[in-house]
Amino acid sequence: MRRTFLGLPEVREKARVALIPAPYDATTSWRPGTREGPRRILEVSPYLEFFDEETGSEPHRNLGFYTFPEPELPVDPEKAILTIESLVCKALDEQKFPVLLGGEHTVTLAALRALKERFSSFKILQIDAHPDLRDVYQETPFSHACVMRRAYEMGLEVVAVGIRTASREEYELIQREKLSVLWARDLKRDFEAGLANLKDLLGEGPVYVTLDLDGFDPAEAPGVGTPEPGGLTWYEVLEILKLAASFRVIGFDVVELLPIPGDPRTEYLAARLIYKFLAYLERGLRTS
Amino acid sequence: MRRTFLGLPEVREKARVALIPAPYDATTSWRPGTREGPRRILEVSPYLEFFDEETGSEPHRNLGFYTFPEPELPVDPEKAILTIESLVCKALDEQKFPVLLGGEHTVTLAALRALKERFSSFKILQIDAHPDLRDVYQETPFSHACVMRRAYEMGLEVVAVGIRTASREEYELIQREKLSVLWARDLKRDFEAGLANLKDLLGEGPVYVTLDLDGFDPAEAPGVGTPEPGGLTWYEVLEILKLAASFRVIGFDVVELLPIPGDPRTEYLAARLIYKFLAYLERGLRTS
Amino acid sequence: MRRTFLGLPEVREKARVALIPAPYDATTSWRPGTREGPRRILEVSPYLEFFDEETGSEPHRNLGFYTFPEPELPVDPEKAILTIESLVCKALDEQKFPVLLGGEHTVTLAALRALKERFSSFKILQIDAHPDLRDVYQETPFSHACVMRRAYEMGLEVVAVGIRTASREEYELIQREKLSVLWARDLKRDFEAGLANLKDLLGEGPVYVTLDLDGFDPAEAPGVGTPEPGGLTWYEVLEILKLAASFRVIGFDVVELLPIPGDPRTEYLAARLIYKFLAYLERGLRTS
Amino acid sequence: MRRTFLGLPEVREKARVALIPAPYDATTSWRPGTREGPRRILEVSPYLEFFDEETGSEPHRNLGFYTFPEPELPVDPEKAILTIESLVCKALDEQKFPVLLGGEHTVTLAALRALKERFSSFKILQIDAHPDLRDVYQETPFSHACVMRRAYEMGLEVVAVGIRTASREEYELIQREKLSVLWARDLKRDFEAGLANLKDLLGEGPVYVTLDLDGFDPAEAPGVGTPEPGGLTWYEVLEILKLAASFRVIGFDVVELLPIPGDPRTEYLAARLIYKFLAYLERGLRTS
Amino acid sequence: MRRTFLGLPEVREKARVALIPAPYDATTSWRPGTREGPRRILEVSPYLEFFDEETGSEPHRNLGFYTFPEPELPVDPEKAILTIESLVCKALDEQKFPVLLGGEHTVTLAALRALKERFSSFKILQIDAHPDLRDVYQETPFSHACVMRRAYEMGLEVVAVGIRTASREEYELIQREKLSVLWARDLKRDFEAGLANLKDLLGEGPVYVTLDLDGFDPAEAPGVGTPEPGGLTWYEVLEILKLAASFRVIGFDVVELLPIPGDPRTEYLAARLIYKFLAYLERGLRTS
Amino acid sequence: MRRTFLGLPEVREKARVALIPAPYDATTSWRPGTREGPRRILEVSPYLEFFDEETGSEPHRNLGFYTFPEPELPVDPEKAILTIESLVCKALDEQKFPVLLGGEHTVTLAALRALKERFSSFKILQIDAHPDLRDVYQETPFSHACVMRRAYEMGLEVVAVGIRTASREEYELIQREKLSVLWARDLKRDFEAGLANLKDLLGEGPVYVTLDLDGFDPAEAPGVGTPEPGGLTWYEVLEILKLAASFRVIGFDVVELLPIPGDPRTEYLAARLIYKFLAYLERGLRTS
Ligand SMILES: [Mn+2]
Ligand SMILES: [Mn+2]
Ligand SMILES: [Mn+2]
Ligand SMILES: [Mn+2]
Ligand SMILES: [Mn+2]
Ligand SMILES: [Mn+2]
Ligand SMILES: [Mn+2]
Ligand SMILES: [Mn+2]
Ligand SMILES: [Mn+2]
Ligand SMILES: [Mn+2]
Ligand SMILES: [Mn+2]
Ligand SMILES: [Mn+2]
Repeated sequence: MRRTFLGLPEVREKARVALIPAPYDATTSWRPGTREGPRRILEVSPYLEFFDEETGSEPHRNLGFYTFPEPELPVDPEKAILTIESLVCKALDEQKFPVLLGGEHTVTLAALRALKERFSSFKILQIDAHPDLRDVYQETPFSHACVMRRAYEMGLEVVAVGIRTASREEYELIQREKLSVLWARDLKRDFEAGLANLKDLLGEGPVYVTLDLDGFDPAEAPGVGTPEPGGLTWYEVLEILKLAASFRVIGFDVVELLPIPGDPRTEYLAARLIYKFLAYLERGLRTS
Repeated sequence: MRRTFLGLPEVREKARVALIPAPYDATTSWRPGTREGPRRILEVSPYLEFFDEETGSEPHRNLGFYTFPEPELPVDPEKAILTIESLVCKALDEQKFPVLLGGEHTVTLAALRALKERFSSFKILQIDAHPDLRDVYQETPFSHACVMRRAYEMGLEVVAVGIRTASREEYELIQREKLSVLWARDLKRDFEAGLANLKDLLGEGPVYVTLDLDGFDPAEAPGVGTPEPGGLTWYEVLEILKLAASFRVIGFDVVELLPIPGDPRTEYLAARLIYKFLAYLERGLRTS
Repeated sequence: MRRTFLGLPEVREKARVALIPAPYDATTSWRPGTREGPRRILEVSPYLEFFDEETGSEPHRNLGFYTFPEPELPVDPEKAILTIESLVCKALDEQKFPVLLGGEHTVTLAALRALKERFSSFKILQIDAHPDLRDVYQETPFSHACVMRRAYEMGLEVVAVGIRTASREEYELIQREKLSVLWARDLKRDFEAGLANLKDLLGEGPVYVTLDLDGFDPAEAPGVGTPEPGGLTWYEVLEILKLAASFRVIGFDVVELLPIPGDPRTEYLAARLIYKFLAYLERGLRTS
Repeated sequence: MRRTFLGLPEVREKARVALIPAPYDATTSWRPGTREGPRRILEVSPYLEFFDEETGSEPHRNLGFYTFPEPELPVDPEKAILTIESLVCKALDEQKFPVLLGGEHTVTLAALRALKERFSSFKILQIDAHPDLRDVYQETPFSHACVMRRAYEMGLEVVAVGIRTASREEYELIQREKLSVLWARDLKRDFEAGLANLKDLLGEGPVYVTLDLDGFDPAEAPGVGTPEPGGLTWYEVLEILKLAASFRVIGFDVVELLPIPGDPRTEYLAARLIYKFLAYLERGLRTS
Repeated sequence: MRRTFLGLPEVREKARVALIPAPYDATTSWRPGTREGPRRILEVSPYLEFFDEETGSEPHRNLGFYTFPEPELPVDPEKAILTIESLVCKALDEQKFPVLLGGEHTVTLAALRALKERFSSFKILQIDAHPDLRDVYQETPFSHACVMRRAYEMGLEVVAVGIRTASREEYELIQREKLSVLWARDLKRDFEAGLANLKDLLGEGPVYVTLDLDGFDPAEAPGVGTPEPGGLTWYEVLEILKLAASFRVIGFDVVELLPIPGDPRTEYLAARLIYKFLAYLERGLRTS
Repeated sequence: MRRTFLGLPEVREKARVALIPAPYDATTSWRPGTREGPRRILEVSPYLEFFDEETGSEPHRNLGFYTFPEPELPVDPEKAILTIESLVCKALDEQKFPVLLGGEHTVTLAALRALKERFSSFKILQIDAHPDLRDVYQETPFSHACVMRRAYEMGLEVVAVGIRTASREEYELIQREKLSVLWARDLKRDFEAGLANLKDLLGEGPVYVTLDLDGFDPAEAPGVGTPEPGGLTWYEVLEILKLAASFRVIGFDVVELLPIPGDPRTEYLAARLIYKFLAYLERGLRTS
């Protein structure tokens, strides 16, 4: 089965954007199923309108998309990350902007590693309900709950947005190391201030954007493993992505989709968000 | 089975309001099922409180309701529209205010045609995520995706509220013809301004209100075919309906309900909305 | 999106079997959704074992499959039948054995018409809970409930197996015209006798096989519109198909799949059945 | 809302059969919801074929049905039983054959009491997975788990069919008192012998039939509170009902339907069974 | 099965907080199932982060929790209330702060009665979509729809927040008796004013907090019996609870959870809310 | 949370039977979720009748059960197997009969390894739809699809019952090595002959029984990853287990439960089966 984003025929050579399915889901504790995520995003994507009315643009036409075939991933997280990393490298070698479709948050590490070889330094804009800063979780350091801790260890600066729950250890690490966290409850109190703060924290960029769908409020994105109340709205995330698009963006991922049979809202939102973010990025990607 | 709104016995002669089931659903592309819509709205309606605490009124008592039996509709959209139109005409002949229960958005045409014979001119207030302005869709001009294009061709002015996705062709038509569209993202930025704008656009009225439930945010109304994120809230729609009620309203429909088994939220919201709008309209309908 | 049976790459020229999606669903009265049928069968098919342990054969390798892209079908049943008919004709022109994936039972007419032009006479083996012998249903003669009546009018002999409900009119027609019906309750009493009877009724063949999934017991195939209790089991249907395979079979369809979100049993059974029937037919198709 | 069996208009005076909704559900321990049962049976009933192809009869035409409006039942089981009993009495006073639609099994007591006043003695044919012979359950003697114990105390003889689980106390009572139990596993070994045994046990009749839907195998009737594996099939239950119809039958109930949203199989089977049993009873009821 | 809040081992003697399951659900009219509520809250609670990032506190460690085993409740509401009341008394006798887990709203009466014996006077802060002020409902005065009427009769002052539907009788009672109701639509217009008003109305306290989950918007808390649109958000409820925590709080309950299979959002929100409110109350409870 | 089988308090020292949760689920390809299996079996088990009416025995009383706490399992399959193996060893050291609750079929290896150290030789009775004889699957030899291949390599003889699908490689291995497979379709033709054959193949025993729930027909056990039609019935599996109980049985597992939210049939069947098999084994276990 050859699933493509929007269900359209694609020309690999001309594509400026690579969609990379990363159906990894092994370290989840509560509710498994994110391995179905990439498949579902691709399956609902043909029902989008292939046009962005906000920017008046058509990224699928102006940039060109190429959807990688879904890889079979080994069970071992380190090996799975390696497999995905090689796909991201292939995309980068073909001068394509990588868009990773998770799978659990662990897969972000694959993109970070591939990009680290090409960019001496970049910032990570993480949209998430959780900081994912644990050292080890369920006996592995390569868990969705540890992914940003690994990023910090790679020397990457993370700006976390929408966080609204944390373990005591994560909380103390954030305080001690003065990590950049924009808590959801502060954003809810004064979103404009938060946005300005975010702009400062992103500094010069470039920026990698990782979007854990549980950053959204579960009312809008119910298909996630841990439906943490009090999350971001569609328009808040769009504002954040528009700000990100004012920087040089070098990669993007959408992770932690846990599809709910019969309720396509979350995958539809994810597909829409990808199209929209690419519309925001269109000019930048065409000229870079 | 004789389903009535609120599950109450009704006296046809005394009823000032006609509820007309229009279970048509044949042109849907993605997820079929809106033909169950009227049935589900009627089935949950007895669990409403039969009293509106905002206005202190009881429209079922003060106006009187009559629910038409659900018609069997032909597959062909043109014939289906004709069948529904004859029901609307019957209601109008009995001096009843017509409330259409969809079914896909196509059914609105039936009401528009029946009213066009009686009112030389009126405005349409459309609440929707989509402009529904295509010329042809899936080889038929009588599709839910074309219904407002047909309305324009009938010489009716449409004010579309809550729109947040469009095809390129629709977008260009809107720009070229300067059609009245209040985009959702503009309403979200400044709702009061949008409301004032809407008031101006409705001019002198009279007004027909068509409510595609996907105008609501899918968090509040998940039971729709295309759950477009970023929609209107309950209180925003109520404000719009209160404004509409300050005009002469000549008909109303609620369409595109796609019931979700085990989740009655959307049909309950639809039933509640109908009761509430009739409460807003009560004084006007009693004196007209 | 290019969905293929088993999810494998295909070579059109070499394929002896054509899978033709026919996602038509407009005349359903109770529970719509069969238009999702072809898509779901194709989506679960890659999870089959690509080998038939009963015959030791691999039809996908030995015959070769080609899956037609899913057509967009008009709402009007006659036009929809025409569109599907042209696909079946294309398959027949390419010397391919046609396997239609429904969609509602109406789509069988498309195959019958295409075959009628090429075979002066053939028998229809219908597995179904219902005789589908109405003259008109919901104002159209092209309804799932009328499809076998249309077949009789084309001069085709139908042998109906597994029937367990009928309208009075259908029942009287069956009695009056001595139509060939193997009632489910008789098969349950003496299956061997029923099978022998079926063999006689099929005479010399050739045979077109149409399988309405509601012929199965709803315990085994819950994903159908009218879950009529008392249906056939997996092994009973296999016996019937093995008998059919002893005749010359000129076409096959599987119709009336109404997918249930989160319960893939029915589409999996359908996909498995198609693979198995093709394994039974393999020798015949290779030498014809 | 006036729900009728088959959704047809009814003439109370002419009706020989009374359908009595008994939506009581308060003593359930595990999974509540049987109060939705009567409503669901009535709602799917219009989708039945109004003709029985086995007997060639049309009980709705030849006997006439009248569906009582659904009563509001008090929480207290004794009072609820009283309310239902008065409805059964009304039906009996109008010379109607009572068909009770449960609700939990407790409601059978209402029918037994009403009939006890009119028939000095009768037998109960109970189809069930459980003997329901507890003395007290959850602090009340009026529980679904005690209903047949209460029947025995009323001096009524019960023949229980399909039983496949019991508490130790129930088991010892059955052994000690030599109660008539046809265990499911014995029926599965030799159904003909079981049927002959049943015939003997029913003696001279008359017979009241109470059908707890969990008597069916959960594969065929998934919508029950306790899905006990190893139950009866559709054809086995039909054989039992045909045998019952050879006696004078004075009442019937179908209880313990726990509707599953989106899976109408169990209520459809229940509705079909009621129609079929009435077809079996038709001649008897017309002449009595 | 011994279910504990957070799934942790507990030391009864040291626990300052008692969690009391009250799985009563018998007077529900529309959609039953709240008896599963306590079980579900406890089952999802181990997936919470055991730390409150807003206050930096760990109530499970600093206060200590003890979860009562789930009682078997009689069907009769008065007796059920008595059973629960005795558990609350036990908790109070052990100097524990009672947190009741419903079950339908009726169970609140058990806590009120137990507290009334120990506190001459206190206020009730009710978060709810409905005033629950009926005199009798479905023939019993001990219904979820009557619970606050009973509270008033006990001489307790109720401040109701989030109300957005009422019967005419309730509405007239509120007007006539000038009962304290903060309507949802007023809160939505000016939340700060509402909060200030609430503070005044609570006066000197002490306060009992009863949270009917339908006070939340159904988008955030879909698992309730009557999903009334237009409800409170997570952050609004948190503000209200923070205000409550500035008073002496003597008890708390979370009621009317109707779990939806496969969608744990509502029980997760309930568990999170309980943990958070206890974090707000931590200092007060440690020093009292 | 301390979940116990039947929800009863347990005395570890006196227990002759150990229930060992093995919530491993990482190598699944299609539909994940078996890690929820052990939890669900334990959660529904309190709703069983604690008595076996067929044998008149009460294994929970006569043997005594002890349920191990659910272990946290590493992602790596080899390490997960080691963790589970150590639990099985603990059970065996305490002279307890081990009953493993899966989790995917991979976990059986843990029991086989622990038993291999204690029994020089034993047979495996495998009930399954699939032979699970692949060498490697998805890059790991420790997959559910390889577990019986690993068993053969350990020198253990496997008798596979109910098989109805296989890869070509598995099929050829079975033919070449003359492995003991009782195909489902042969059992369906002549069950008595199959049973006799099975008895011969088990020889002298002792026997380890591994039950993949997909061995059952999906109509009876829908909650499995690959719902292969044509499986065994409840009574057929009971016959097989009764035959097994005539041998010395040294361990047992129930694996591959994939719970379906809202449909407890499969976990209930699994819990019932465990209780029943222990009733069959009761005498043997008490005297050994
Ligand atoms: Mn997260
Ligand atoms: Mn994350
Ligand atoms: Mn729309
Ligand atoms: Mn529309
Ligand atoms: Mn059919
Ligand atoms: Mn058919
Ligand atoms: Mn029962
Ligand atoms: Mn019963
Ligand atoms: Mn409420
Ligand atoms: Mn309440
Ligand atoms: Mn298997
Ligand atoms: Mn297996």
